[in-house]
Amino acid sequence: MDIFEELKNKKIKLYQLDDMLGHKEATKIRREFLEKELNIKFNHINKYSISEENVKKNIENMIGAIQIPLGIAGPIRVNGEHAKGLFYIPLATTEGALVASVNRGCSIITKCGGAIVRVIDDKMTRAPCFKTRSVVEAIKVRDWILKNFDKIKEVAESTTRHGKLIKIEPILIVGRNIYPRFCYKTGDAMGMNMVTIATEEACKFIVEELKKENIDVKLVSLSGNACVDKKPSGMNLIEGRGKSVVAEIYLDREEVEKYLKTTPEAIAEVNRLKNYIGSAISNSMGFNAHYANIVGAIFLATGQDEAHIVEGSLGITMAEVEDDKLYFSVTLPDLPLATVGGGTSVETQREALEIMGCYGSNKVLKFAEIVGAAVLAGELSLLGALASNHLAKAHKELGR
Amino acid sequence: MDIFEELKNKKIKLYQLDDMLGHKEATKIRREFLEKELNIKFNHINKYSISEENVKKNIENMIGAIQIPLGIAGPIRVNGEHAKGLFYIPLATTEGALVASVNRGCSIITKCGGAIVRVIDDKMTRAPCFKTRSVVEAIKVRDWILKNFDKIKEVAESTTRHGKLIKIEPILIVGRNIYPRFCYKTGDAMGMNMVTIATEEACKFIVEELKKENIDVKLVSLSGNACVDKKPSGMNLIEGRGKSVVAEIYLDREEVEKYLKTTPEAIAEVNRLKNYIGSAISNSMGFNAHYANIVGAIFLATGQDEAHIVEGSLGITMAEVEDDKLYFSVTLPDLPLATVGGGTSVETQREALEIMGCYGSNKVLKFAEIVGAAVLAGELSLLGALASNHLAKAHKELGR
Amino acid sequence: MDIFEELKNKKIKLYQLDDMLGHKEATKIRREFLEKELNIKFNHINKYSISEENVKKNIENMIGAIQIPLGIAGPIRVNGEHAKGLFYIPLATTEGALVASVNRGCSIITKCGGAIVRVIDDKMTRAPCFKTRSVVEAIKVRDWILKNFDKIKEVAESTTRHGKLIKIEPILIVGRNIYPRFCYKTGDAMGMNMVTIATEEACKFIVEELKKENIDVKLVSLSGNACVDKKPSGMNLIEGRGKSVVAEIYLDREEVEKYLKTTPEAIAEVNRLKNYIGSAISNSMGFNAHYANIVGAIFLATGQDEAHIVEGSLGITMAEVEDDKLYFSVTLPDLPLATVGGGTSVETQREALEIMGCYGSNKVLKFAEIVGAAVLAGELSLLGALASNHLAKAHKELGR
Amino acid sequence: MDIFEELKNKKIKLYQLDDMLGHKEATKIRREFLEKELNIKFNHINKYSISEENVKKNIENMIGAIQIPLGIAGPIRVNGEHAKGLFYIPLATTEGALVASVNRGCSIITKCGGAIVRVIDDKMTRAPCFKTRSVVEAIKVRDWILKNFDKIKEVAESTTRHGKLIKIEPILIVGRNIYPRFCYKTGDAMGMNMVTIATEEACKFIVEELKKENIDVKLVSLSGNACVDKKPSGMNLIEGRGKSVVAEIYLDREEVEKYLKTTPEAIAEVNRLKNYIGSAISNSMGFNAHYANIVGAIFLATGQDEAHIVEGSLGITMAEVEDDKLYFSVTLPDLPLATVGGGTSVETQREALEIMGCYGSNKVLKFAEIVGAAVLAGELSLLGALASNHLAKAHKELGR
Repeated sequence: MDIFEELKNKKIKLYQLDDMLGHKEATKIRREFLEKELNIKFNHINKYSISEENVKKNIENMIGAIQIPLGIAGPIRVNGEHAKGLFYIPLATTEGALVASVNRGCSIITKCGGAIVRVIDDKMTRAPCFKTRSVVEAIKVRDWILKNFDKIKEVAESTTRHGKLIKIEPILIVGRNIYPRFCYKTGDAMGMNMVTIATEEACKFIVEELKKENIDVKLVSLSGNACVDKKPSGMNLIEGRGKSVVAEIYLDREEVEKYLKTTPEAIAEVNRLKNYIGSAISNSMGFNAHYANIVGAIFLATGQDEAHIVEGSLGITMAEVEDDKLYFSVTLPDLPLATVGGGTSVETQREALEIMGCYGSNKVLKFAEIVGAAVLAGELSLLGALASNHLAKAHKELGR
Repeated sequence: MDIFEELKNKKIKLYQLDDMLGHKEATKIRREFLEKELNIKFNHINKYSISEENVKKNIENMIGAIQIPLGIAGPIRVNGEHAKGLFYIPLATTEGALVASVNRGCSIITKCGGAIVRVIDDKMTRAPCFKTRSVVEAIKVRDWILKNFDKIKEVAESTTRHGKLIKIEPILIVGRNIYPRFCYKTGDAMGMNMVTIATEEACKFIVEELKKENIDVKLVSLSGNACVDKKPSGMNLIEGRGKSVVAEIYLDREEVEKYLKTTPEAIAEVNRLKNYIGSAISNSMGFNAHYANIVGAIFLATGQDEAHIVEGSLGITMAEVEDDKLYFSVTLPDLPLATVGGGTSVETQREALEIMGCYGSNKVLKFAEIVGAAVLAGELSLLGALASNHLAKAHKELGR
Repeated sequence: MDIFEELKNKKIKLYQLDDMLGHKEATKIRREFLEKELNIKFNHINKYSISEENVKKNIENMIGAIQIPLGIAGPIRVNGEHAKGLFYIPLATTEGALVASVNRGCSIITKCGGAIVRVIDDKMTRAPCFKTRSVVEAIKVRDWILKNFDKIKEVAESTTRHGKLIKIEPILIVGRNIYPRFCYKTGDAMGMNMVTIATEEACKFIVEELKKENIDVKLVSLSGNACVDKKPSGMNLIEGRGKSVVAEIYLDREEVEKYLKTTPEAIAEVNRLKNYIGSAISNSMGFNAHYANIVGAIFLATGQDEAHIVEGSLGITMAEVEDDKLYFSVTLPDLPLATVGGGTSVETQREALEIMGCYGSNKVLKFAEIVGAAVLAGELSLLGALASNHLAKAHKELGR
Repeated sequence: MDIFEELKNKKIKLYQLDDMLGHKEATKIRREFLEKELNIKFNHINKYSISEENVKKNIENMIGAIQIPLGIAGPIRVNGEHAKGLFYIPLATTEGALVASVNRGCSIITKCGGAIVRVIDDKMTRAPCFKTRSVVEAIKVRDWILKNFDKIKEVAESTTRHGKLIKIEPILIVGRNIYPRFCYKTGDAMGMNMVTIATEEACKFIVEELKKENIDVKLVSLSGNACVDKKPSGMNLIEGRGKSVVAEIYLDREEVEKYLKTTPEAIAEVNRLKNYIGSAISNSMGFNAHYANIVGAIFLATGQDEAHIVEGSLGITMAEVEDDKLYFSVTLPDLPLATVGGGTSVETQREALEIMGCYGSNKVLKFAEIVGAAVLAGELSLLGALASNHLAKAHKELGR
């Protein structure tokens, strides 16, 4: 009981318990402390199978775990470059009807030959903000960076085994400030931490080298928001971030009629009036129906960073009638993804990745293609449902 | 073993198992089927304490649950209208250093008197898309809607006990199409499902009544993307959606120096060059450092819709030096929140809400204020860290 | 020669000449002074017929006039509410091929029955920025403004004969700051100056009245950029500003083939891939091909504020194939227009307005409809040209 | 009289007159025809000194000219790389108070040592839209373009003496479509026409060469709206277009107090609350007060394309207090400019360029720097005026 008193009196801080007691016991004590303090009783947060030791780098002040129900959609046929064949999609969500909707899309896509998917770009970025005395200096800094790319690359890469600096672009100048966007390949890791450390080292190098040339440049912030991390942005829409993915399919008129109970024309019209004109007049960056739903459920299932769902919401859906077929595609320019590191090694998340054969090294492009296919499935299903006017009905029946 | 054959041959669909066997058994069979099919073994996804029956409206094709480690930050003093006192913040995340960062912010804010928080607006929206023959008709439809608001309200509200239609605004016209944005109060529920059903009924009424007046209007899509749900948008930034929240604090110079190891001027500068200029030149809608991180971790902990993290990423941080103090605030125009319904009643999520005394009825505004305070804490902590240039260092130590 | 010496020595300032010598002579002296100073010779800037006296409120430090060639397109049949019949469109531009392109569009539209045009909204706005001590105060200010709208209206309208304050909406709160958007009807004037003066008076009233209630609110800036004047913005796209106009037409397949040498499908495809997807992926607010060209040329011809071309560039073009017809429309949410005041009374601009019967009172809605029709013509012509792949060819022949 | 009958009966078209009668006479006949038709009388549109022959490539269906009063601001001291010394700024506008405001800014800047200005980037762009059968093909097209840049460059440049293709970047892929952004140096010409013709040739080459490799790619539109021409866009904000210019100055506290009747802090606050927060919450792309005003007036004076004022409205103003000084800067990423071609050779516009010594070859960077300085002047003056709360007063006195 003593320890609870000390926690109450702040002689011991909650976060100090781990060093004192180990993660497992510290987690228990914190939980019990809260129960006492708040006069509540945990019956579920304390029931988990994941190892406190395993997640010690993922969480501080751990008191237990949240459980999110996991459903399965599919299988969906993916005709990717890296993902080929049938895949089940693990989806963690509490939004009723979502798994059913994706599942319907998977089923239709599979019956119609599968989703063609490609990763069109792949990089992780960090854009610090430097300050100088004048635009005249800012231009010198930019030009120095461009000229010394190879040296900067060497310094940045010295901090990491997997990260490769591929370009510093664009290098934005606003007044006397410079925002160079460092772009890296980060292998199977999502890479934010890796590129932050590498960029910090590069920044130190830049500041020091320029000092030698009598150019005084100050690092204002290691992240200058041109990265753009976890905020919606034109930058990422245009330049891409994480994995940029396109998934597409052609459906015959008969297939649309049979499986989606509507017509190619009706889907194309809903797509145009909702995803283009509705989004345009609302000044939205998401020219799609609900990418965030599918991206979100996969991200939670597989241990991706939940805040990156923001970036996954960007993108453009196409639905065009041509030669009596429906061309349908999703373009996701900004999907930060990992199959190693971060939350991917939490026990349940790892198992979710294993459902797709996507845990571990050399899997992230395969994973990206499967995510693209799943988003295609979810988007097709919802637009089909809207086109046949039964969205609310579906929700009513499946309840929420 | 029979059933696995039938599942394999698609004589039985995975989703049909629930009706045949009940949710618990169906979940188990699906899981085992996957294990067989994929030749994998689940050791964790099958370990959960939540009841399949309880989440049957939240998930389809359930195979188990994902566990996300839950940490605790705080307590933080909240000086709200609805939340008053000290609160612990439950955060579910696998992003190392996040809980520690928010915790630091909570500690500082509490030492400095607490966060002032207010909910400045509250509504849930759905904006269908109607189509007519001509802009001439579209104007008639708009005018009819404006004139018959009371009747439409009656029809919409007939579908719900808690939803109240407060306005239909704006009513956008693009060519011959109309996008009226239905705005509701939805009590303690997040309300998307509620407003979808209510709006569908209203739409039917509008179409039928206008038919009587010989105006032919077609409902193209129950959601016309001007809602705007789960996509970043100027609409929601300007008009607000869900709970719109402001949290703020004044810090003395000495407090900034002592607790954040930097100066008010340095924080104000980082905020200006990163959150304003960096975001502006990147065409970002998030004039903040990392709202999505804190919003995301609370959303997962408390059973909010993960795709709404997208909307929570919008907003503007202020940091201004005045009278030797730092004025610091966060403005979140778009936070869809619930304390009942959806994922809030999943057992672990309910317990997370109970940590804040926020589960159940008449709690959502209190909850909104606590979320605002937590975002203030996370934002202050990160900007302080950037200002004292130790972001990468913090990550290195806390590992990720 | 004396006066040139004094100007050179800055004993007399260039702008002081008007009071000393009258506008005509002052203009001449300034011009001659420049000729001497710069050792150049003006042979054209000095050749103008407009009266210096007449434009004295339009320009300071006048030295002469610029001539912009004026072309004519049309006539175009306009089926508006205010503009009915055939109209010639005056276009002042130096961009070769523009008049020809609009002219072609006018001809086609007229042959096909004319453009249906409607003004869907009409208002001029000014949004000051107020600052308080806290969001708590900011909310009080907002609520006070909402409650005292009638009084504020009275004060604002006391400054103007023509301006009517119709609403203050939205009232944005960011941190401790408030941005109320004052919306006025301004009759036939564009109204920016009118609403600035009216809003200034309203602001004084608000500050003083709130002082009586012990709420300390400071006017930071009479324009807080939420107006939004002369900058592209989601605000104006969504909320509208100036005249919001829709123009539309249905073209038979045969008409498209005969007059535009292409098909409805080709135009719809170009519109989709260029105006929607190309604009979306570029994070553009102009979902159109070249509204700014037509708006710009009419604005110059008729004395509108050239900086408002920025706002006129916003908007969405629709091109849809339906029942073997092409539905084609332009939606311009943000057209600040005048038929009295500002540059409209400059002699040549007035004559340009008279070509359309649009100079003077009670003409601005008619004018707005004609502008909408002209934009429809220009947009149809360019999309048609692109669809038949001869843009560059046209430019080559007509030269630029 | 005969000819008027034939024009009325459309036996002769208005635009056919030039070939029949020459430009001068054709202009006169068209004008007289309009007078007859509309029963109006032109007394000013017919009074111009510019030669119809000279502007024949700038206008079709000419009937005369518009006169816009021309004022002069300055001189302003410019410390550029290309522009060094004192310059008068010609401004064509009918917006009262604008010239006075810019003039005030010029005077202050000159007293305080002059504006430092640099062109940070320079290019003109055209981005066609290609369509293929599948994203798989789209990737091949992109990769082919990247690999064959040198050949494409040769083909593109074969059409022009002055245009140099410097890069094709970004190459956007959406679904099965590709939008390569062709970036050129265009010398002293604005270059849109030049790059359109060059890009058309390049497109033909790409389509034909890919056909040989059995890749079927179709040019949908020579402009795919990722250029982005005459529409506001994130693309141009981030990537730049035309001349990208920064102008800056440091003002001592005493200078701010003496010349602007306010404080550095007040200007910094107005800039923050108006240009950053007001613009951010309105989802505006113009983080400035009124760039479009100054850009617009110079564009009209000097024969730039008026529709490009849209692009000139983008940009970010900085105002920061540091070491008891005010750092003040404007960043204009998107200024399409010319000193030859287009409207620059119209007689009056040429004379306006000559006022700055900017007509003709090798002048465009000098011109760009002067424009940057002028915008700095206008922005400083307005923010100063707002900071001392006398905007409306100024307008009242100078009238509008």
